[in-house]
Amino acid sequence: MPATDRVKQILSWYGSDNPGTKANLYRMLDHGQLAGTGKLVILPVDQGFEHGPARTFGPNPPSYDPDYHFDLAIASGCNAYAAPLGQMEQAVDKFAGQIPLILKVNNSDTLAKIDQPCSAVTSSVEDALRLGCGAIGYTIYPGSGQRNTMYQDLRELTLEAKRKGLVVVVWAYPRGAGLSKEGETAVDVAAYAAQIAGQLGAHIIKIKPPTAHIEQAEAKKVFEKYGIPTATMADRVRHCVQSAFNGKRILIFSGGETRDSAALLEDVKGMAAGGAFGAIMGRNAFQRPRAEALKLLQSVIDIYKAAP
Amino acid sequence: MPATDRVKQILSWYGSDNPGTKANLYRMLDHGQLAGTGKLVILPVDQGFEHGPARTFGPNPPSYDPDYHFDLAIASGCNAYAAPLGQMEQAVDKFAGQIPLILKVNNSDTLAKIDQPCSAVTSSVEDALRLGCGAIGYTIYPGSGQRNTMYQDLRELTLEAKRKGLVVVVWAYPRGAGLSKEGETAVDVAAYAAQIAGQLGAHIIKIKPPTAHIEQAEAKKVFEKYGIPTATMADRVRHCVQSAFNGKRILIFSGGETRDSAALLEDVKGMAAGGAFGAIMGRNAFQRPRAEALKLLQSVIDIYKAAP
Amino acid sequence: MPATDRVKQILSWYGSDNPGTKANLYRMLDHGQLAGTGKLVILPVDQGFEHGPARTFGPNPPSYDPDYHFDLAIASGCNAYAAPLGQMEQAVDKFAGQIPLILKVNNSDTLAKIDQPCSAVTSSVEDALRLGCGAIGYTIYPGSGQRNTMYQDLRELTLEAKRKGLVVVVWAYPRGAGLSKEGETAVDVAAYAAQIAGQLGAHIIKIKPPTAHIEQAEAKKVFEKYGIPTATMADRVRHCVQSAFNGKRILIFSGGETRDSAALLEDVKGMAAGGAFGAIMGRNAFQRPRAEALKLLQSVIDIYKAAP
Amino acid sequence: MPATDRVKQILSWYGSDNPGTKANLYRMLDHGQLAGTGKLVILPVDQGFEHGPARTFGPNPPSYDPDYHFDLAIASGCNAYAAPLGQMEQAVDKFAGQIPLILKVNNSDTLAKIDQPCSAVTSSVEDALRLGCGAIGYTIYPGSGQRNTMYQDLRELTLEAKRKGLVVVVWAYPRGAGLSKEGETAVDVAAYAAQIAGQLGAHIIKIKPPTAHIEQAEAKKVFEKYGIPTATMADRVRHCVQSAFNGKRILIFSGGETRDSAALLEDVKGMAAGGAFGAIMGRNAFQRPRAEALKLLQSVIDIYKAAP
Amino acid sequence: MPATDRVKQILSWYGSDNPGTKANLYRMLDHGQLAGTGKLVILPVDQGFEHGPARTFGPNPPSYDPDYHFDLAIASGCNAYAAPLGQMEQAVDKFAGQIPLILKVNNSDTLAKIDQPCSAVTSSVEDALRLGCGAIGYTIYPGSGQRNTMYQDLRELTLEAKRKGLVVVVWAYPRGAGLSKEGETAVDVAAYAAQIAGQLGAHIIKIKPPTAHIEQAEAKKVFEKYGIPTATMADRVRHCVQSAFNGKRILIFSGGETRDSAALLEDVKGMAAGGAFGAIMGRNAFQRPRAEALKLLQSVIDIYKAAP
Repeated sequence: MPATDRVKQILSWYGSDNPGTKANLYRMLDHGQLAGTGKLVILPVDQGFEHGPARTFGPNPPSYDPDYHFDLAIASGCNAYAAPLGQMEQAVDKFAGQIPLILKVNNSDTLAKIDQPCSAVTSSVEDALRLGCGAIGYTIYPGSGQRNTMYQDLRELTLEAKRKGLVVVVWAYPRGAGLSKEGETAVDVAAYAAQIAGQLGAHIIKIKPPTAHIEQAEAKKVFEKYGIPTATMADRVRHCVQSAFNGKRILIFSGGETRDSAALLEDVKGMAAGGAFGAIMGRNAFQRPRAEALKLLQSVIDIYKAAP
Repeated sequence: MPATDRVKQILSWYGSDNPGTKANLYRMLDHGQLAGTGKLVILPVDQGFEHGPARTFGPNPPSYDPDYHFDLAIASGCNAYAAPLGQMEQAVDKFAGQIPLILKVNNSDTLAKIDQPCSAVTSSVEDALRLGCGAIGYTIYPGSGQRNTMYQDLRELTLEAKRKGLVVVVWAYPRGAGLSKEGETAVDVAAYAAQIAGQLGAHIIKIKPPTAHIEQAEAKKVFEKYGIPTATMADRVRHCVQSAFNGKRILIFSGGETRDSAALLEDVKGMAAGGAFGAIMGRNAFQRPRAEALKLLQSVIDIYKAAP
Repeated sequence: MPATDRVKQILSWYGSDNPGTKANLYRMLDHGQLAGTGKLVILPVDQGFEHGPARTFGPNPPSYDPDYHFDLAIASGCNAYAAPLGQMEQAVDKFAGQIPLILKVNNSDTLAKIDQPCSAVTSSVEDALRLGCGAIGYTIYPGSGQRNTMYQDLRELTLEAKRKGLVVVVWAYPRGAGLSKEGETAVDVAAYAAQIAGQLGAHIIKIKPPTAHIEQAEAKKVFEKYGIPTATMADRVRHCVQSAFNGKRILIFSGGETRDSAALLEDVKGMAAGGAFGAIMGRNAFQRPRAEALKLLQSVIDIYKAAP
Repeated sequence: MPATDRVKQILSWYGSDNPGTKANLYRMLDHGQLAGTGKLVILPVDQGFEHGPARTFGPNPPSYDPDYHFDLAIASGCNAYAAPLGQMEQAVDKFAGQIPLILKVNNSDTLAKIDQPCSAVTSSVEDALRLGCGAIGYTIYPGSGQRNTMYQDLRELTLEAKRKGLVVVVWAYPRGAGLSKEGETAVDVAAYAAQIAGQLGAHIIKIKPPTAHIEQAEAKKVFEKYGIPTATMADRVRHCVQSAFNGKRILIFSGGETRDSAALLEDVKGMAAGGAFGAIMGRNAFQRPRAEALKLLQSVIDIYKAAP
Repeated sequence: MPATDRVKQILSWYGSDNPGTKANLYRMLDHGQLAGTGKLVILPVDQGFEHGPARTFGPNPPSYDPDYHFDLAIASGCNAYAAPLGQMEQAVDKFAGQIPLILKVNNSDTLAKIDQPCSAVTSSVEDALRLGCGAIGYTIYPGSGQRNTMYQDLRELTLEAKRKGLVVVVWAYPRGAGLSKEGETAVDVAAYAAQIAGQLGAHIIKIKPPTAHIEQAEAKKVFEKYGIPTATMADRVRHCVQSAFNGKRILIFSGGETRDSAALLEDVKGMAAGGAFGAIMGRNAFQRPRAEALKLLQSVIDIYKAAP
């Protein structure tokens, strides 16, 4: 399909990337129900690794099966599906080429109790190529004392990924001894995390929905002095989008913990109104029964279809 | 789009390949007007290098522009577009991701008069990745005294391409001191060339339409003894398809030199009836004015759509 | 021997692997008394490194000799034998090709007292190939502060092993400052460890028999909310199998510390009933006199022969 | 343009560098309004990473856009523009070749609270080459317990940069547990930092304007014994310049936090009088509205044009 | 200097290149008297290697000195200077950064008598970087039986040069047993050579002024059938420009052997009228006394300044 004007505009922000990376970015933007709109809904399933199998798949036992998520991502018309190495590898052969894929190349489990969290690099650019993934996904924990290790591992992966025509998606999740629990989703911190991910060379950035809390004293002064609005979700998302190179990097938002659909969709509406490029929705999707998940994803997709 | 049964069947023949290669094969089979049918029509434009610009583009001057061919391949609904490095690189940035691409990694010009022809390796797997191509294309000249150089260069490219998730397309063009001019398209030679390309590890094989001539004395005896039919194009194509691992490698046929549409389409019908997986049609497409080219390609596509 | 339907089914879960890896997997599944059943009993002998020679071989002095274990594994009709580099290398020459081999490529001793345990990488894929081993074995300690080092070392070994057609067997042994002693075998932790090993790309996963204890508060809520049964060994094993990609990765269970045969076989029956793919039994085998060991192994094999 | 005598003299101090590095140094000295004078004014914009987006870009919202800074640097006639990977990469394609560029290859954020600060290496010499940057920029924190990590990372980057013809610019910012807050800009410490950067192989050194405070007791004795003047900014800058290999390394000074133009320009005059090679001015430039920023930069440039 | 519209248009044809390559291309287009016009005049001096010193420098003895050529290129306001390794290295240190440089990385001498000529690769991308050259230059001999060796060496150099942000300039000089002497500059052959250089990935292509002769019988038919004009230099250059991707690769013309200025300038006028991007003029420049050379180059530059 020839590119829409909106997709062309988005691609124009990635002028330093080679055509391989642009092609993989295009494939994500051209796939699923939101094809051509410049919006994305992505299904990420790495919680088996991050939170353990029972907490992740227990609420909806068919989801223990790696096939389940490929099927859900395809059936719902998502733009892409993201997973760690093993889960991707187990099922990808059957679904090869049917949906753009993001190989989650670092992961962290919650068995070791670590003050300064740091994900392990668990797969590689070479794995992404052999498994047919068009992107690598990587989590950073700004706020952790181990952040430099994560930034530096990312540097090498990013350079190689870009050379080989892959897209780099960064999950920017502030966390660690430097931040209060509330601060992890504070609007100043969320925007800062988006900025850091952008500076590290991410093509697509994923953050959590920002709250009205402001964590850093220095930032608080600036928000007040310049009257940066933070009252509504749309306001806060707008600031985050601006913080991602004035909206010139694709910024998407996670759905957070599982909860009822009405509250979730209300938030999604706010994010869409604030200029979010889309949603990355894992637990809220696959922990519901399949029919409900499809319905919820459809509602999210519809919101983004209607967004400006 | 979920894979059709026919596409699943075809992919099942490539069980030793990694999901990356399967994904790129799937993308070709899932693109354009023939998506899902298991048939392919590909636009190859390497004649600028092979025959020179005037002979190639002179008949239809807009085709001097690399953009022209991307546009033609997309507008006609072809499955893929193939070109050498420079022509690909000049225009691909604008069309990245919009159509599956085959980087033609070896080429031969016709300025040096060489008895034993041999193409030069002119680009690499790394180029294919950075330009967003899902396949490399490579020409072999069975019959040339230099064939081993070509087979050996291909060996290295194939190993790397397969590791990195690319598809390998081999143009098997018998040529050289070992063959008479007529023998280059003889049915025994064409089938033999398809077999060699398959043995060298090609995922997709391209040969020329076979004639009823039989070049090799030893082969002639066998054709006669076992009554292998060669009277019609369908007969001959059937033998070639069988020779490509009993039809378990995708075998497509070139259109040959430019000529009138009626004769060409008659041949295509024969090939489709014989079980050809499709056509790779260069000069007969881009040397016609755009409207005529689109019409011809549509006719070819329609024949393959209707084929069993 | 042609593959049985069950073996075919198991191999079908490894669609992303190359035929080399599949062949080595097939060889394990096609060897010994359990050939063709899809079940495995493996003899692992790495305790000389892990616990010291006297603790390991003292109870049955002939076992000081590396030949002893090859002989035991072959005589008992096990599917495979696993050992560290030196022990493998000392004896393998005599038994080359007679039984599938797993080179244990990392090991830990108990002389250094380390809070956050981490095994050393002690041999390589290259060693496995030169010694005729069809698999590498690797231990991870989820729960250790050093787990990332182990995951990252495994990443590189796995990529190379898979490229070179080897099978990857992961011993997932939760351990370290993040866990209580009881928690190391808690059912939630055991299942989580199986999941992590799967996500890291293991073909075969080995865990310890899970107890009814639940270590993580967050997991406890889920087990209760969704009524995940944990009362019997079969229940707990069933959860672990499900946690290994819904049973699509071969999950086997160790025998634990040496104890009397009756108790052990009772446990093995429970595990077989819960869907375990087999047992990996070291000390309980080789620390008994040879005749007793053969008898015990025969009993275990018989249980798995009879399992559904 | 043929080199001026002053530029030739400066280049003569870099006799051990290859012509590639000299060419890139020349390009900086030959660009913008100060071309040929041997003075430099550089626009650095890495505060988005270092301080967060709102604190950095909030005062002048158009500056959220990476294009803004390229435009400002070009329009003002600066010698060069410095930025981290993402911000550079997002916009550089449009401005390629129009102004000398410094890729800031390490960065630190302020979300993690770390006693002994250490920047992460976030990009590479390879990135600088592919993005068309003629220099890498690197921050060291003399005074931090992590300084050796930074010095050692720099060692590798410097060796590679010099081999590939790039210039190395070092931001020498004393900081960390070894220093009082006041001591970070003390004249003895600033001069010491310039010396360290020079010893580490920097071609261009950036320090903060030194205050009259003397931090180290041992240094205080020497300053007093030999009557090293520190009363005026010119005095202090003179000592720093002397400390940078007797003025044979290009030493430039940052503007510090945003403040009113009169005070700032007074300082700049002092620095120019003391022999500073120029200014590197970030927040004081881009946090003002564009017209004011251009006026301020013009004033700074005029001071350096008039300097001896 | 901000890019002119024409330079922006030219750069837009190189969308697949990284910003590093674009920056070096920009620097050539932005340098000298023709800065911003999209035209180039380049001084190449590799004849010392190709023809020997007496034949090359004898006519104007000061030209034995490598400094002479840097000075001539700078004084005349050329866009760039090209030379082989030794000559470049001997003098570049003094002129570093003052003019864009092309390192001629292959060369051929005329001492060995070879039927099928082939240049030796005499320097590398690494040399270009350490010497501050923004481009590599490479000669191919289409028509030679050794052409494949040259194309394949170029493939590796091109991939590396593009990754490291350099420009690739290809001298396409048909020569060898496949061609008559007259055929080396035949319009069909010249256009073909331009096409081949483009297909091999050249950013800038240099050919010789084409004559009205048509060498290839097959081409002759096409020229006649489609009435491709070849009567004037402008006609022939127009065909060559079209053959270089419809004018989307920079195509420049050499001056050929030394001769009188009037004849030469007449040719240059024709070339400029036909759409040539400029001239690369070696012997006609440096074999004249300096004053005459400057005058001639000024005349050539003036013609291109006045060209459409």
